[in-house]
Amino acid sequence: MNIYDISEKAGVSIATVSRVLNGATNVSEKTKQKVLAVIEQYEYTPNAFARGLGLNTMNTIGVMCADSSDLYLAKAIYYIEQKLRANGYDSILCCTGYDLAAKIKAMNLLITKKVDGIILVGSNFIYDRESDNKYIIDAAAQVPVMLLNAAFESPNVYSIVSDDFTSIHDATVEMIRSGVEDIVYFYNSNSYSGKRKLAGYRAAMEEHGLLYDERLMQFYQGSHEDIAAMTAHLTALRDTGFSFHGLIAADDNLAIAAVKYAKKHNLSIPDDFSVIGYNNSLLSCCSDPEITSIDNKLETLCQHLITTLLGVLGGNEMPKITVFNGELVTRGTTRATTPQG
Amino acid sequence: MNIYDISEKAGVSIATVSRVLNGATNVSEKTKQKVLAVIEQYEYTPNAFARGLGLNTMNTIGVMCADSSDLYLAKAIYYIEQKLRANGYDSILCCTGYDLAAKIKAMNLLITKKVDGIILVGSNFIYDRESDNKYIIDAAAQVPVMLLNAAFESPNVYSIVSDDFTSIHDATVEMIRSGVEDIVYFYNSNSYSGKRKLAGYRAAMEEHGLLYDERLMQFYQGSHEDIAAMTAHLTALRDTGFSFHGLIAADDNLAIAAVKYAKKHNLSIPDDFSVIGYNNSLLSCCSDPEITSIDNKLETLCQHLITTLLGVLGGNEMPKITVFNGELVTRGTTRATTPQG
Repeated sequence: MNIYDISEKAGVSIATVSRVLNGATNVSEKTKQKVLAVIEQYEYTPNAFARGLGLNTMNTIGVMCADSSDLYLAKAIYYIEQKLRANGYDSILCCTGYDLAAKIKAMNLLITKKVDGIILVGSNFIYDRESDNKYIIDAAAQVPVMLLNAAFESPNVYSIVSDDFTSIHDATVEMIRSGVEDIVYFYNSNSYSGKRKLAGYRAAMEEHGLLYDERLMQFYQGSHEDIAAMTAHLTALRDTGFSFHGLIAADDNLAIAAVKYAKKHNLSIPDDFSVIGYNNSLLSCCSDPEITSIDNKLETLCQHLITTLLGVLGGNEMPKITVFNGELVTRGTTRATTPQG
Repeated sequence: MNIYDISEKAGVSIATVSRVLNGATNVSEKTKQKVLAVIEQYEYTPNAFARGLGLNTMNTIGVMCADSSDLYLAKAIYYIEQKLRANGYDSILCCTGYDLAAKIKAMNLLITKKVDGIILVGSNFIYDRESDNKYIIDAAAQVPVMLLNAAFESPNVYSIVSDDFTSIHDATVEMIRSGVEDIVYFYNSNSYSGKRKLAGYRAAMEEHGLLYDERLMQFYQGSHEDIAAMTAHLTALRDTGFSFHGLIAADDNLAIAAVKYAKKHNLSIPDDFSVIGYNNSLLSCCSDPEITSIDNKLETLCQHLITTLLGVLGGNEMPKITVFNGELVTRGTTRATTPQG
């Protein structure tokens, strides 16, 4: 018996149950009695109730991420931790790795430790197989679960995402308009976000009739730190006789490798070879020339995630999915776009 | 009453107390009785004892770091988490920021959660003022405390450090031998490790009679991600009429800025301008030319830290301070050294 069951049995939203438990005044007496009757019937003594009475609250949020050495995930954790602290919450972080069993174990650990909510950082927590996402549904039956960069519809789960599809789609169109047509998409993740990005590239290329070869989509499987291996991957592609004069990368580290590839083969950037990265990270400014990159507004996403979580914990009805737009930050690796008209 | 007090009152080492509590056989009967007498006298029921009996063990280590978005700290957390997991331990990470009060709060949180040990990642946890380190001593009275990259002598505290002094000293000497004498030291931290690095630079320059101006030591105060501001800092130094043809950076991001500074002023690298970075991070390979950088063997440090912690938890006597040497990884930003003879 949990807050989700009560909501179902009383025929009201989870937020309403939460409001009743927290003693909010903006609930009708009738609704309140309905919820309390269910609670009494099933002898439910929820954490949220204790919290409403000022008892037993930990003021602690569990934060899970796969790999804290990934520049993007590390940054997200940093923003989330700062914003939680600013609102009087402690954060416990579990680095789970990419293995589902480890994620489930970490999730259970956090629930055992009676955190007030759980934040899943990065889209790799959502799986294609419905049954693989059961651990999230189970956790959400206990505490609100927040997803950063992945959308998943389930009670008490809230998603904050950047529109990766549109960001990559529009960046691809930009590059096509700048006069480059043989554009490779270079990626290293099949996560929820990774799939959305790839779909954005596919759509843009198909719209322009340019998706003529499967080799245009290059999946890199090695370490996300091994720039040399990524560069070698591109050189190997070139060595097959395949020609390409532009590259859109799913992450800035892959874009760094593309710049190195171009230099190695004496391709002038951006005249002979264009590159667009993703994340607008520190790496995009380390390269020479600096890399045009998609900023997916990570800090804004994190800010909204915390606002949503605090709203939920306060018993308010909050949006289930919030979508933000990314922004292309133009630097030295792309050519000017030919004006349309 | 804690394990530290028992050790003192029984006149034996903490490791011996731990061995007795864990029922180890390699303790003399006399010593064992002495320890048990103190425990009985003070009615001590330690976590460690419960652990020895297989009760109440969390198999969880608390990991504290100031800022998980710092590339170096993020990497350390990654290694530590992986190695703990491989040994059957969960890790709870608290990102504390650089403020002492927040560190103390996080430490107390972890103790409350009954972790089996605490790892402090990064040298900023150690303060100059003795009283500011009391929170570490207090925590170590409950559980073993491990320091990565800082040395602090106190019971039940174990330090794993890289010899930053020698690494920077030797790198400075290398650059001097390559024919560069006006070498700026560019740094952004006054942590324990930061001070050791600066001292290494000072010593090398003084040995060669080259520390002729305080301006040779440049402290950068801004964001650790703002490469443009770091570059501007160096340009501002140049604009004062100060001349320098080499730079040793306390971190790779500062070295990236130095490379950008040189390009901006048309200084050829390494002929007109030499650069050495620190950490041998992903950044050192993103730059063009790639940056000569000091590898302080982070993974080795983390491996030894976990080995030491597991040893302590197993009731073994382990070294209080372990020091490793760094290694200069030569890339394109330094000239060949003139052979000595």
